[in-house]
Amino acid sequence: MKTRIGILGYGNLGRGVECAIRQNEDMELAAVFTRRTPSSVSILTKSAAVCSVDDVADWKDKIDVMILCGGSATDLPHQTPEYVKYFNVIDSFDTHARIPEHFANVDAAAKANAHIGIISVGWDPGMFSLNRLYANAILPDGKDYTFWGKGVSQGHSDALRRIEDVKNAKQYTIPVNSALEAVRSGSNPELTTREKHTRECFVVLEEGADAAKIEQEIKNMPNYFADYDTTVHFISEEELLTNHSGIPHGGFVLRSGVTGWNKENKHLIEYSLKLDSNPEFTASVLVAYARAAHRLAQEGQSGCKTVFDIAPAYLSAKSGEELRASML
Amino acid sequence: MKTRIGILGYGNLGRGVECAIRQNEDMELAAVFTRRTPSSVSILTKSAAVCSVDDVADWKDKIDVMILCGGSATDLPHQTPEYVKYFNVIDSFDTHARIPEHFANVDAAAKANAHIGIISVGWDPGMFSLNRLYANAILPDGKDYTFWGKGVSQGHSDALRRIEDVKNAKQYTIPVNSALEAVRSGSNPELTTREKHTRECFVVLEEGADAAKIEQEIKNMPNYFADYDTTVHFISEEELLTNHSGIPHGGFVLRSGVTGWNKENKHLIEYSLKLDSNPEFTASVLVAYARAAHRLAQEGQSGCKTVFDIAPAYLSAKSGEELRASML
Repeated sequence: MKTRIGILGYGNLGRGVECAIRQNEDMELAAVFTRRTPSSVSILTKSAAVCSVDDVADWKDKIDVMILCGGSATDLPHQTPEYVKYFNVIDSFDTHARIPEHFANVDAAAKANAHIGIISVGWDPGMFSLNRLYANAILPDGKDYTFWGKGVSQGHSDALRRIEDVKNAKQYTIPVNSALEAVRSGSNPELTTREKHTRECFVVLEEGADAAKIEQEIKNMPNYFADYDTTVHFISEEELLTNHSGIPHGGFVLRSGVTGWNKENKHLIEYSLKLDSNPEFTASVLVAYARAAHRLAQEGQSGCKTVFDIAPAYLSAKSGEELRASML
Repeated sequence: MKTRIGILGYGNLGRGVECAIRQNEDMELAAVFTRRTPSSVSILTKSAAVCSVDDVADWKDKIDVMILCGGSATDLPHQTPEYVKYFNVIDSFDTHARIPEHFANVDAAAKANAHIGIISVGWDPGMFSLNRLYANAILPDGKDYTFWGKGVSQGHSDALRRIEDVKNAKQYTIPVNSALEAVRSGSNPELTTREKHTRECFVVLEEGADAAKIEQEIKNMPNYFADYDTTVHFISEEELLTNHSGIPHGGFVLRSGVTGWNKENKHLIEYSLKLDSNPEFTASVLVAYARAAHRLAQEGQSGCKTVFDIAPAYLSAKSGEELRASML
């Protein structure tokens, strides 16, 4: 019996989940739910249905885990507590500051309806968070560092596109190699925002735009660019589509710490990701945690969980015996 | 109420555990158990007792978790199933091939006595195993690579010291950088033993020894050196003590995989450790899992567990709420 998955929201992340399900033999896609007219949405999986999100409750007994692929700003804060009433759910809620509130909302609804809701699944929050936790538990006396990139920041690309006379744009966040090396050396540097990352912008202008003025506007944009060394390249739309249409990302989580009676020994724990497709990797993490959600629900557990609360073995299709023999 | 820890076996690992306990405010060392005459063993923690291993059963109600610091070859296979009768226990059993058998023995004894036994804790097996599991669950279509070093191999150093006319010796296992880079490039290379690691030996000879003959004996030693490119340096005892008395180690776990409907996107997950002291780092992992063992036992759980079976939150002194607010 395969785990029957539903996808709610069919953008980049939803399509990534569809692809990831295909790579896991114990999973199958039951249906995709959309706010658009279902007949206008074409999916890749021939055996799966495309349905209106309005009909989602009809699928209550036909889906084991619903993967919510909406955005963190406006979709997930109300979708996750709502849909956990009908399904075990997974989301990738990534507004770090609002996680405690989101957890409480999902937990109450999940417990009231005897479902599992796993929130904030992906790589940050997600795999990066796990690595911070493990590394802190092992080396209580130390310092954490997270670097992001090289990769496309959707939020910063959007900020560029909102500028008048900008036709299209893509922004890369790039970790500063010398800062990374300083951390790896064990010197525990104090690093400013500017010292950790640079920002590189590829911008397509409308005809007749004032490039010099727009470059200044970008470099001085508060929160987004002013605190960073930012480079702006003006390119043609054709070049943007040819060379910058991917959605790569990645990053580094490091913890540098000491052990010994007199703290005489240094240690470095480093975790890094290099991803050709940010949404497809996030989707792959979501699908692994969907397996865990189904198992936890089958055990009779309920409530809201995060990656911190789930034993690693639940993520694997292999049995405990197989895991011990092959991976330990 | 602090978690009361016992240490059984006071070598490098036991001393490392003693140091790690000092770094965790919610833990205290109750007693060290030794096969030597207790009065001959001097420990660092003034408040803790030194006892004969023969009296260990007297401590049944005075220790929450016993950390077994013996060796995998002859100590742990009988110690862990024996002491789990009296205590919750943690070990660092690292004979990969015999883990299934060890698990079964510990599980039976642990369940019969309502205790928790966590086996094969450390970094390999341990943190490296966890990273293999997570990476495999996320990227089911991919390839695993593990590199060890640069670090001291105790087993290979011992093999050198068993050679006639070798007075003392230290062996470093070194990952081949070009092999690591090939893996990072995503080319999924097939790598032979010789292509992945080199071995570097620092050897002190007895007076009048035949250096050329010993060098050949080392380089042709089956299992240990014959399959590797091995370098041998003959040095003075003084130089060995000055420059090679540390026990550093580390390594890399990588998984290179693909996602997408047509497997068009590549991803690389990399975890690495750079450790000044192999035993102190292993000890730090043991102490974090001792915290988990105590909590699991307090919840009424019993049986044998590995790092795969334990939710990450159990390792941290912080509450779920604190973890979500600070690390997710």
